[in-house]
Amino acid sequence: METALINHIRSLPGTEFIGDDAAVIGDRIITVDMLTEGVDFILADVDPQWIGRKALAVNLSDIAAVGGVPRWIFMAAAFPKNGVPDGALDSTALELAQQLLTGMKPLMDRHNLILAGGDTNTWDGGLVIAITLIGSITERGVFRRSGGKAGDRILVTGKLGGSILRHQFFFEPRIDEALYLNNHYKIHSAIDISDGLTLDLHRLAAESRLGATLYETAIPIAEDAVTLSQQSGCSPLDHALSDGEDFELLFSLAPQEAKKLLLHQPLQPSGVTLYDIGELTTGTGLRMVTAEGSTQPLTPKGFEH
Amino acid sequence: METALINHIRSLPGTEFIGDDAAVIGDRIITVDMLTEGVDFILADVDPQWIGRKALAVNLSDIAAVGGVPRWIFMAAAFPKNGVPDGALDSTALELAQQLLTGMKPLMDRHNLILAGGDTNTWDGGLVIAITLIGSITERGVFRRSGGKAGDRILVTGKLGGSILRHQFFFEPRIDEALYLNNHYKIHSAIDISDGLTLDLHRLAAESRLGATLYETAIPIAEDAVTLSQQSGCSPLDHALSDGEDFELLFSLAPQEAKKLLLHQPLQPSGVTLYDIGELTTGTGLRMVTAEGSTQPLTPKGFEH
Repeated sequence: METALINHIRSLPGTEFIGDDAAVIGDRIITVDMLTEGVDFILADVDPQWIGRKALAVNLSDIAAVGGVPRWIFMAAAFPKNGVPDGALDSTALELAQQLLTGMKPLMDRHNLILAGGDTNTWDGGLVIAITLIGSITERGVFRRSGGKAGDRILVTGKLGGSILRHQFFFEPRIDEALYLNNHYKIHSAIDISDGLTLDLHRLAAESRLGATLYETAIPIAEDAVTLSQQSGCSPLDHALSDGEDFELLFSLAPQEAKKLLLHQPLQPSGVTLYDIGELTTGTGLRMVTAEGSTQPLTPKGFEH
Repeated sequence: METALINHIRSLPGTEFIGDDAAVIGDRIITVDMLTEGVDFILADVDPQWIGRKALAVNLSDIAAVGGVPRWIFMAAAFPKNGVPDGALDSTALELAQQLLTGMKPLMDRHNLILAGGDTNTWDGGLVIAITLIGSITERGVFRRSGGKAGDRILVTGKLGGSILRHQFFFEPRIDEALYLNNHYKIHSAIDISDGLTLDLHRLAAESRLGATLYETAIPIAEDAVTLSQQSGCSPLDHALSDGEDFELLFSLAPQEAKKLLLHQPLQPSGVTLYDIGELTTGTGLRMVTAEGSTQPLTPKGFEH
């Protein structure tokens, strides 16, 4: 949620505001994400099943970011009414709703999720889908953005950049990896990369009251970042540093723990490869050690909601 | 949610679907409702604070329908971007968001609610606001639509009809009344009237595997139903029977309990007047006993989502 809006909420007398992406209430974790036509997808260009999958997957990524177990889905959606009167979904809207659900089904099966409720509407506007996902905390507790310590290694669960080409619809939310890490290692801080590596790392570092240093040669660059760079005029590295919707897990842990973890690559049980890309530091702000060995300030860039 | 869609969900292999308006998970109650521009409000015609209030109040009414205690709000919203690029809310969208929240504030204060999370977006479309409200079950358990018994009296917490004129934005969700009833009486079944008296009574009766009889002369008709009838060509009674968005509590209890309850009118502590409008019966379907004393079938009518 928008910083200015959060500040407004906090300024309302007597208002308490718990979290941003995932709130923890007792032993439950709650996340909500809304996708809108034209911003998060172009309805004419994609299979509607992809939209349903993405709407669920972005919420799963939020649950992964805190190391929890996803359980119950609540789906609210507004469907284009295609000229028919208000009220019941017409056959086109109903089919669209069914396709969204069909697209969600493989992730529901894989993570044993229950569709627990919802609200469907038709209107003279584009497709909007908002999912609230409720999960459970494990006995190991949750990851926080704010728990990073100076000297922590910063790791990421996959290659980055160019997700707009394909990955944004087909990424695997890092639920299993987050639970494995939570169970077997002492993770100090974590966030999912939804808005871009540097922007989300900046958020994690700032909430931990630290800075961070990245190593240019260590940043894992996705093939699609290379492909995209041929059209965009930006370098593959730029795409890896600032493209949104990677939905990889970015986390920090003590150097000894990181060393132990990296000895057991690829990560069990999913086979994911982890990349050690830098370290949390005292001070504030981001820096990058370039391929030539110089250290330069790094401006957080990415997608601001 | 749409019946056809619920049936589709239930037909997906391995899918479990818990509830419609309010789902009960452990000791928590979860509801989600989405409002869309042009259907639930005309942005140009109303104070945006009214929209924020309504978005919260319709969810509070769902919690009241199950006799629970509302606690945590999660708000997802899409704001018109007014021609500026994707990304951060522009000043117009931010102001709109702040007005929505300001409109929610009195109900938040009154019911000690916490805004716990959210997701805000801008897009080339109208205003959409979806609230997920999480509440707690009391030690008395929850009301169910399905708990009605043949012979139960059917009561309602206020006058009905014509809510489109004003009540849709300013109704008081029956949280306090539902908790008082839950604490002091044995309520067999309950629902909130969101889509029209006859349609919601039909749902309650059907889920209780019963029918219902209403008494024409007992139906409490709101003044706005009379006002509206002067423009609409429908009778005030028609408006009371089938207009949506009354958001009164409709519930059933044993005749002896009802008698005891009605002796203590108005309801403590809120001063609300209850109306005894009919009874649950064996069989199926709705009937009405007219002012002349004849019994006629009554077709459920209202707003179908």
